[in-house]
Amino acid sequence: MELSVYLAGEIHSSWREDIKQLVNEANLSITCYGPMENHDRSDHIGEEILGEQPTAILKDEAASSINNLRTQILLEKSDVVIALFGESYKQWNTAMDASTAIAKGKPLILIRPETLHHALKELSNKAQVVVETPEQAVAALSYIFEEE
Amino acid sequence: MELSVYLAGEIHSSWREDIKQLVNEANLSITCYGPMENHDRSDHIGEEILGEQPTAILKDEAASSINNLRTQILLEKSDVVIALFGESYKQWNTAMDASTAIAKGKPLILIRPETLHHALKELSNKAQVVVETPEQAVAALSYIFEEE
Amino acid sequence: MELSVYLAGEIHSSWREDIKQLVNEANLSITCYGPMENHDRSDHIGEEILGEQPTAILKDEAASSINNLRTQILLEKSDVVIALFGESYKQWNTAMDASTAIAKGKPLILIRPETLHHALKELSNKAQVVVETPEQAVAALSYIFEEE
Amino acid sequence: MELSVYLAGEIHSSWREDIKQLVNEANLSITCYGPMENHDRSDHIGEEILGEQPTAILKDEAASSINNLRTQILLEKSDVVIALFGESYKQWNTAMDASTAIAKGKPLILIRPETLHHALKELSNKAQVVVETPEQAVAALSYIFEEE
Amino acid sequence: MELSVYLAGEIHSSWREDIKQLVNEANLSITCYGPMENHDRSDHIGEEILGEQPTAILKDEAASSINNLRTQILLEKSDVVIALFGESYKQWNTAMDASTAIAKGKPLILIRPETLHHALKELSNKAQVVVETPEQAVAALSYIFEEE
Amino acid sequence: MELSVYLAGEIHSSWREDIKQLVNEANLSITCYGPMENHDRSDHIGEEILGEQPTAILKDEAASSINNLRTQILLEKSDVVIALFGESYKQWNTAMDASTAIAKGKPLILIRPETLHHALKELSNKAQVVVETPEQAVAALSYIFEEE
Amino acid sequence: MELSVYLAGEIHSSWREDIKQLVNEANLSITCYGPMENHDRSDHIGEEILGEQPTAILKDEAASSINNLRTQILLEKSDVVIALFGESYKQWNTAMDASTAIAKGKPLILIRPETLHHALKELSNKAQVVVETPEQAVAALSYIFEEE
Amino acid sequence: MELSVYLAGEIHSSWREDIKQLVNEANLSITCYGPMENHDRSDHIGEEILGEQPTAILKDEAASSINNLRTQILLEKSDVVIALFGESYKQWNTAMDASTAIAKGKPLILIRPETLHHALKELSNKAQVVVETPEQAVAALSYIFEEE
Repeated sequence: MELSVYLAGEIHSSWREDIKQLVNEANLSITCYGPMENHDRSDHIGEEILGEQPTAILKDEAASSINNLRTQILLEKSDVVIALFGESYKQWNTAMDASTAIAKGKPLILIRPETLHHALKELSNKAQVVVETPEQAVAALSYIFEEE
Repeated sequence: MELSVYLAGEIHSSWREDIKQLVNEANLSITCYGPMENHDRSDHIGEEILGEQPTAILKDEAASSINNLRTQILLEKSDVVIALFGESYKQWNTAMDASTAIAKGKPLILIRPETLHHALKELSNKAQVVVETPEQAVAALSYIFEEE
Repeated sequence: MELSVYLAGEIHSSWREDIKQLVNEANLSITCYGPMENHDRSDHIGEEILGEQPTAILKDEAASSINNLRTQILLEKSDVVIALFGESYKQWNTAMDASTAIAKGKPLILIRPETLHHALKELSNKAQVVVETPEQAVAALSYIFEEE
Repeated sequence: MELSVYLAGEIHSSWREDIKQLVNEANLSITCYGPMENHDRSDHIGEEILGEQPTAILKDEAASSINNLRTQILLEKSDVVIALFGESYKQWNTAMDASTAIAKGKPLILIRPETLHHALKELSNKAQVVVETPEQAVAALSYIFEEE
Repeated sequence: MELSVYLAGEIHSSWREDIKQLVNEANLSITCYGPMENHDRSDHIGEEILGEQPTAILKDEAASSINNLRTQILLEKSDVVIALFGESYKQWNTAMDASTAIAKGKPLILIRPETLHHALKELSNKAQVVVETPEQAVAALSYIFEEE
Repeated sequence: MELSVYLAGEIHSSWREDIKQLVNEANLSITCYGPMENHDRSDHIGEEILGEQPTAILKDEAASSINNLRTQILLEKSDVVIALFGESYKQWNTAMDASTAIAKGKPLILIRPETLHHALKELSNKAQVVVETPEQAVAALSYIFEEE
Repeated sequence: MELSVYLAGEIHSSWREDIKQLVNEANLSITCYGPMENHDRSDHIGEEILGEQPTAILKDEAASSINNLRTQILLEKSDVVIALFGESYKQWNTAMDASTAIAKGKPLILIRPETLHHALKELSNKAQVVVETPEQAVAALSYIFEEE
Repeated sequence: MELSVYLAGEIHSSWREDIKQLVNEANLSITCYGPMENHDRSDHIGEEILGEQPTAILKDEAASSINNLRTQILLEKSDVVIALFGESYKQWNTAMDASTAIAKGKPLILIRPETLHHALKELSNKAQVVVETPEQAVAALSYIFEEE
């Protein structure tokens, strides 16, 4: 069996590398997808493809149209979504990807520090699994492959 | 024609009353739904129905299970969703309701101050209409009813 | 606003009457649907319509084809499903109706005594709300209608 | 042609091994999925991943969130579901998996002793095929591969 | 509660009138839809609207485009479909309407003489209820409205 | 029975008034929806609600976001779509509305002069009915209401 | 590119072999599925798996439950359905498979002699392509693979 | 990861070859599908398979039934659709394919000269990405494959 997993969430730490390394160590047949992790490239991709934009909002709109193209296609190819929330940033696109997954019937594994639980309580309630660390998320994925 | 609108977003200001008053002034056949706006009742509804919970997280989980029941039913009954983002709070449940609407094929009208655009750029790109004030949102709704 | 609720579960106690009375007392605009509560009629409806059947299994099959017709139509008309599990009987049709509701995107309110939780743990995890009494279920429904 | 089959039902007997052996003997290109069959691991997986839980119900909830993650993903990957009911246990999760399959348009093969037919009559009526033994279930699968 | 029923099948006998009269006698809140029962009008409606057609096949194609418009809209508005098969005619459009209902998740009540069972065995197996007379079909509908 | 019809197509002639008058004359219970027919208002609605835009393309984008909001909501409320193509204009939004209806399972009645058939041949092939005049379109709608 | 095609229709002539041979000669990457073509095995499969049945109707019901299992799974795996109607037999299961394909959004190629057109006019109108011979059906499939 | 892309639009220039060459140069695992690009073959395919037709409209109808068969199957197999509009031709089938993709949840990349923006404004608003050249479209696709 092979699984595809979309890794939604912030692109300022190395948590996706942690997930991928844990997946490799556990020898799981899992393909990981995710957003562009180079923050500058993600913010500038709109202007790089479409040319300079007249305002900051239009620069953002151009970039998000390309980023959402990527997300929509990769999320559609995934069997399960892992979304990580951290202490910093608004992370509304993380909430968007997580909610889109749920609405499309793809199970969500939510990773967040316990301190954020109150603000995330409605999303946590809709997630299939709520954990605190990438190790726990991969342990849940690993369990899917286990045979007695 | 009658429309039903779900008003997603923070419950600390009177923006929903503004919307309803504007709808009334414009004589639009619109029914507005929304979350429980009494913040204390929203936070405590879980324990009120299910009894005291052993931890803060479980109190939150109990409350969110009831709040999500309400949201799921009212959002399903709506033709369009208006989501308002403000300067304060995490507002991840607002992002969740807005994204759920989009994923279910219900158009989203997003109200946010321009200062928040960068953080909301992916969600803005998926919204059908992006405005800054409740007046603009109601103007868009009003346009649906107009006949030459 | 009007809600329709399907009341799945055993037909040997008066719990549906309790729900309806509580709904009336709370003045909620709720229509309650449910299975045939006359146990004999439910078991014999197949032969009453289709004539005597050669074996007990065929009598059951005839009855269940009519009962499932009723359930499919009434459940489709409902916004939310309440399923009650008790100490007696196999109650597999209750589990079937509850699961069908979830799979069709209709939220489930599960009523069960705490003693049954272990056997119901997978279904409880998928339910939107889990309670122990009809009063709690109606309190959750009532909350959907509340405006501050 | 290759088929994937989810084997829903109790994990206290070796019926899944019987199915897999029969599939092998018949040289059918069938991949079998199913729940964790190690009963202790299934009951404890929540605490193993999420840590010790304060109550038995929360331990169950933690376990079922992981078990349902597994089931949702594997059932989604399956073309057909076989559900086996036996004389013991409540088996409400078996009824849930079987009903979820039907509601998602995946055909169900139901295996049950004739003595259980009355209690299973509504689910039997919705199943595509109802049999008494794993041999019969595999014979039905084998027929799909046959060419004259 | 109100139900809408589409009555698929031949238009050469008065079986739809029988159904409607039985519904009236039983005081059921049921709206009956169905195809154009004037056979000539049904066959000629294409040319009446679109003008004379160069060949018999094109006359048929013109008529069926209008008849299918009617069927698609009325079937979509129905909660349940009754399909009657008789001894005469090919009745392939009856089989089409019945199968479309099933594929769209609307339950089918099939009326046919027992002598036709072998030829109808695959469709019977997919129908929710199989009966021999309009009286039995209405008895099944009536059961949906019954309260103890 | 009541039908709702969305009237897609150009807003430079009075064809919608013709349809509505024919519907009235035939006493059909039909509600007609359609786009803003005041061409100036349709082109300027974006700037009227969102304020002056820096470029012509952005003015168009603002207008189309409001126009598409209207179309999406009204088309969703419709049972059937009539799309009229004329000799002038690109009419790509007419093609878009017509195709959206088909993809959502709503039948399309296409009105076009025979001279346009070649350019419309793929869309004609997907339409349920193809006619040349509003009279013919209303005749097809009228047929849905006819009882012998 | 690879296509899967379900070949619905009578099992008394060799038309499926003709299709497969034409596909081979044209070197098309097409996998053909279809029903059990051994008529006796198809009629007796229910009793072979489930044991002797008390009546002819129950024997038919047993057989059709297995045959429908096969059809549902193979049709789900197909990109397109070819349905052939001939002069003999009721062929209601052919009409059922053809209509199921259409309702599920899979295109239908209908093969029938022109003499049957009147009786098939509603189904023809819903088919994507209507032809008279297997050669024409394969020519249509072949066109999908063509590159200039 | 592998992507499939349907290239909708006119068949009078070599833009599809440009796309394919750019994809090859960028070493992207992308399979491109599209309509028959031989204009004569596309217009005559109906008569080639179905025989001479009595009128020009019927010749068109025959051709479009085969062309739509091809498009429906190839579009269903695609993850994303690129639609190119040029200065010439009505291009209503391009608008149809583009809108069908959007309605089915497949993201659309729209290529058009800026001069056409006003006429395409509603479709542009629904597209995920709007560009002016094939190079920009492939740059957007390439971004989906990028890993930091």
